[in-house]
Amino acid sequence: MSDQPAAPVTAYEPPYYAVVFTSVKTTATSAPGEYGATAERMEELVSRIPGYLGMDHADSPGGLSITVGYFRDADALHLWRSDIEHRAAQKRGRAEWYESYTLHVAKVERSHAFVREPAR
Amino acid sequence: MSDQPAAPVTAYEPPYYAVVFTSVKTTATSAPGEYGATAERMEELVSRIPGYLGMDHADSPGGLSITVGYFRDADALHLWRSDIEHRAAQKRGRAEWYESYTLHVAKVERSHAFVREPAR
Repeated sequence: MSDQPAAPVTAYEPPYYAVVFTSVKTTATSAPGEYGATAERMEELVSRIPGYLGMDHADSPGGLSITVGYFRDADALHLWRSDIEHRAAQKRGRAEWYESYTLHVAKVERSHAFVREPAR
Repeated sequence: MSDQPAAPVTAYEPPYYAVVFTSVKTTATSAPGEYGATAERMEELVSRIPGYLGMDHADSPGGLSITVGYFRDADALHLWRSDIEHRAAQKRGRAEWYESYTLHVAKVERSHAFVREPAR
């Protein structure tokens, strides 16, 4: 996706949704340009969904990738799930990009955030 | 943590819990030995919790880390949250290791997994 984040997405007031997408890419995802362009496009599209709260992403080189998207409510989830371009990208992911993945759609019941105090 | 995973944790039958921990380390977490040893010890401890279902971990070099732990029910969560060594590690994390982090405790309502068919 885009640049390294300076900080994780913060804790919102529950309830809200966390959509956890864990994946391992095929070794053939050596069309990183296409994959990357699609990932960027998805990030652009999801950010327009009313109720979208943010996204965290981490990538172990050669290993597991985890993306967590945060949404205010089930309506926001539904909008994102029904997006035509998103569905096409998912299909292409299964056909070409992913060796395996798991999706967990979960309602956040409790959350908290920590930010270090600046050193003096 | 340990070696690169071959595959993400699979989808369990809902409901179950996903605990999403997103973090950025301090630049001073240049005691990677101590940090790593504690992370390994935590993985060993959590795996003994009845109802623990597994863990996914991804680390963007120099950026965000995401760990997602899966638990069957609130009792399992409670046991892990109350573990004395775990609490001591959390305290040390706030004192030394993390620049910022967010914890989201969420109940999974829906999940699915995809695994590519072997090529012939």
